[in-house]
Amino acid sequence: MKHLVLVLAPLFAMIAAPASATTPDEIVDAAPDSEWREIAPADLLVMTLAPDAAGKPREVVVQLLPEPFSAAWTRNVRALAKANWWNGTSIYRSVDNWVVQWGEGPVEEGKTVPAAMGETSADGYSLDWRSGLVATLWDAHGRRAAEAADKERDGSKFGDPYAAAVGYVNGMPVASDLETRIGPDGAKISRPTRIWPVHCYASVGVARALSPDAGSGTELYAVIGHAPRQLDRNIAVVGKVIDGIEHLSILPRGTGPAGVYETEGERTPIVSVRLLSEMPVAARPRYRVLDTDGDSFARYAEVKANRDDAFYTVPAGGADVCNVAAPVKRFADDASG
Amino acid sequence: MKHLVLVLAPLFAMIAAPASATTPDEIVDAAPDSEWREIAPADLLVMTLAPDAAGKPREVVVQLLPEPFSAAWTRNVRALAKANWWNGTSIYRSVDNWVVQWGEGPVEEGKTVPAAMGETSADGYSLDWRSGLVATLWDAHGRRAAEAADKERDGSKFGDPYAAAVGYVNGMPVASDLETRIGPDGAKISRPTRIWPVHCYASVGVARALSPDAGSGTELYAVIGHAPRQLDRNIAVVGKVIDGIEHLSILPRGTGPAGVYETEGERTPIVSVRLLSEMPVAARPRYRVLDTDGDSFARYAEVKANRDDAFYTVPAGGADVCNVAAPVKRFADDASG
Repeated sequence: MKHLVLVLAPLFAMIAAPASATTPDEIVDAAPDSEWREIAPADLLVMTLAPDAAGKPREVVVQLLPEPFSAAWTRNVRALAKANWWNGTSIYRSVDNWVVQWGEGPVEEGKTVPAAMGETSADGYSLDWRSGLVATLWDAHGRRAAEAADKERDGSKFGDPYAAAVGYVNGMPVASDLETRIGPDGAKISRPTRIWPVHCYASVGVARALSPDAGSGTELYAVIGHAPRQLDRNIAVVGKVIDGIEHLSILPRGTGPAGVYETEGERTPIVSVRLLSEMPVAARPRYRVLDTDGDSFARYAEVKANRDDAFYTVPAGGADVCNVAAPVKRFADDASG
Repeated sequence: MKHLVLVLAPLFAMIAAPASATTPDEIVDAAPDSEWREIAPADLLVMTLAPDAAGKPREVVVQLLPEPFSAAWTRNVRALAKANWWNGTSIYRSVDNWVVQWGEGPVEEGKTVPAAMGETSADGYSLDWRSGLVATLWDAHGRRAAEAADKERDGSKFGDPYAAAVGYVNGMPVASDLETRIGPDGAKISRPTRIWPVHCYASVGVARALSPDAGSGTELYAVIGHAPRQLDRNIAVVGKVIDGIEHLSILPRGTGPAGVYETEGERTPIVSVRLLSEMPVAARPRYRVLDTDGDSFARYAEVKANRDDAFYTVPAGGADVCNVAAPVKRFADDASG
């Protein structure tokens, strides 16, 4: 083991070893039960793939975005899951550092979509800010955006390449513009006017044709590479994979045009995609997400942006929203669950 | 094909279809021969893996960083390749959205490193800016950093989460701080004082233990997920995979501690790692990289940061340095080669 300890120390330093300073995992482990939120069964999809070559079962669990984000699409996705739309379809393309994609459009074999399906529109890709929406927005340094807006900064060191502010809503990464005005007491007050979900590794979105209104939800993709943030506000993000992403990311890349598998045998069969709320209670996996509006997550983001534990000698002084995912744990792995 | 055209239109729009506005690929296709630079055989490593389960050959091509970046490590890597250090070793761990890692340290089986190996020091993780260094630094909006520094900006929209400026040196992504002063004519002049290579998808780095000086180059990793920029300046980047990254990214993830494969059979044997300059000329693959100091790349970065071709309705207004990789083409794929 000496060899492994030597070469793997960097990772161990991140995942286990007590370090000279606090690690992100130490903060997660110390977070009180009161800051963990159970994810509602109606917000979770379980995609069961055919067993792998070794006969091992493969399940991919997707958490759907909370409304009002992408609501027209998440409602369609729930309706499609209830109608067993994806059962018997397949994962038909995989592009390295891009996406894997699955499902089937209504144009094939004259399938008709469930009556519960609604119209979708590109207007839904971002939302007007509404005061009722509970969101914690951070600049990339892990400070609340409002605080950040009060500071003079060099203009790039703590920024996000794609938006004025980034943050989390119920555990989901989002971005926004920021409108800053001077309040009655002369202090700067900043608030978003538009807010939208972002593409990170493991994000799930709705495939569409060139018309921005074209994607109904019948075909979905998951990101398996560096966050393609240029897709934000151009396509509907509906959620993210919270368990089993490796069953998608290790699939062989397709060699046909656009990474489509050239033979039927290369495709991965999808046995079923079900909403947990449609499954027997005893059969449902249960997950908790760390409250992204809570103190532990605030500290987690700050530490992620300023690593100074054993392995690190130069704290970054910033963090990419896609490198600070809301911690999720499965009850089975959680003694307190 | 109608079905595929429908569902794959997003990708087609990015890779092929003439669009209402210029696409990044159109700019690459139109770049004159004078802006393509052949990559020197002494800067390229070919890692030959054992054939895959279907018997298909697997080659991974790594471009080493130009000196003076990480010079102590790239010299060691060349010495190790010449000494066949990695021949017969294996890829021994894979961690989803993190890295795959290979090689062997001198602690095993009493191997001694080549005499040509030199000392390495954490001082080499970033460089003092030297006027002799040819670099083009951009803010994430695709504008030269000096121009960006002349503008008043909101401080985050066009920024990078990890550095004041990002850019490219001989095709390799780098980051820097920016020192801005007022010149004789009253205009702002900004220049980096420190500059360093960054971790992007497919970057190759030197595994090390907790001591920042510990990594000699005998064990390497490649990034197979979202850019772990927090590692910048904490570990030595030595280059990037320019061909065959999918042979690493689709490897099954390890199930042991730190993603180490639990059985010998799960490891991927490395047949050889050779410098192209050590191979017979006729056997060498040849690659060209688009000059990152040239006009075509400048336009490429601008368009990547402001996509408004067929698929896009909301240009991002920015781009992550790791989403704007220097285009590389293999001569075999290049009629003009």
